[in-house]
Amino acid sequence: MGARIEFFFDFSSPYGYLASTQIDGFADKHGAHVDWRPYLMGAAYKQSGRSPMMDQNLIGQYSVHDVARFGRMQGTPIRMPEPFPVATVAACRLYYWLFDQDPGAAKDLAKKLYADYFVNGINIGSKENVLATAKKLGHDADAAAAALEMVRIKQIVREVTDGAIARGIFGSPFFMVDDEPFWGADRLWMIKRWIKSGGW
Amino acid sequence: MGARIEFFFDFSSPYGYLASTQIDGFADKHGAHVDWRPYLMGAAYKQSGRSPMMDQNLIGQYSVHDVARFGRMQGTPIRMPEPFPVATVAACRLYYWLFDQDPGAAKDLAKKLYADYFVNGINIGSKENVLATAKKLGHDADAAAAALEMVRIKQIVREVTDGAIARGIFGSPFFMVDDEPFWGADRLWMIKRWIKSGGW
Repeated sequence: MGARIEFFFDFSSPYGYLASTQIDGFADKHGAHVDWRPYLMGAAYKQSGRSPMMDQNLIGQYSVHDVARFGRMQGTPIRMPEPFPVATVAACRLYYWLFDQDPGAAKDLAKKLYADYFVNGINIGSKENVLATAKKLGHDADAAAAALEMVRIKQIVREVTDGAIARGIFGSPFFMVDDEPFWGADRLWMIKRWIKSGGW
Repeated sequence: MGARIEFFFDFSSPYGYLASTQIDGFADKHGAHVDWRPYLMGAAYKQSGRSPMMDQNLIGQYSVHDVARFGRMQGTPIRMPEPFPVATVAACRLYYWLFDQDPGAAKDLAKKLYADYFVNGINIGSKENVLATAKKLGHDADAAAAALEMVRIKQIVREVTDGAIARGIFGSPFFMVDDEPFWGADRLWMIKRWIKSGGW
């Protein structure tokens, strides 16, 4: 049986976006299964007491440079959006609402929201924009709008986020490979080795 | 002509130590030249406003796990020392004092200090311990002790550190590859690609 990769990410994370364009192909290549698990990284920031990398002097400048370079390396279009970062709670809720019905449709939404934000500069922090994207993908606009306010959906997003933090997850992307943690879009090489060798 | 890699590190950094055991072999393999540049990362922390990873909740626990795993992967013995971190100004001064006379001897000292701290648990924040290591390597103990107080040597350490920060360097290890910045022991794969392809 292949490895199980849980792919944790925040919709506002450029490295999460960069990883999202690679992870399915990577998993296919190495006989692994991937679950996409968007969560609210802001809650993890609060727990760890750190501030977003982009806000820190020196690290922020490096990250802007590195994100663009990483995109060029992968052949992934990316442009740092404004405003940045944005709240991703609406995006998350819509993801898990769809996930309940059809995981494939949820993943399609996730890919589209990432492209909206990091390619087209659409503010996915806005409910209206997230709903417009869901509609474009053929989902019922009224049902989607109602989903954003559903107690059950809010609860799922909270549980996924709290559950992630309880397992020590804090970044984006953050991969749990059969429960072994790997932080960063730049760790796929290590996950590959880990899967191939069965750990060390 | 091969690439020039400037290898910036702090003597108190576990990831710097992990990289130090790889970088020369890596450079040889890819026809690059390496300069070892210890500096005082604490000064960069002040500039960026961040705190050491090990001190942060969630990130700290991950780092402890990751450092041990990274060591096993590489076959590099490593044990998190106590106290941690330590001030590395004496180690840096001695390094640059030797560097002036013989860069090879300076590198030997650096390797020994890293092993002292991360393998043998010797507190390299202590002047006495750093001087004892210099003596073991055959250097004159009185001259070494005097070097720690030399204005010129203090000045070099300050200039290397300020110069690094002015170039946007903040972490350990931090590689400048023909002036292109790469942060982290986990980025050698990317430096390899960069050197091979001439950048992107």
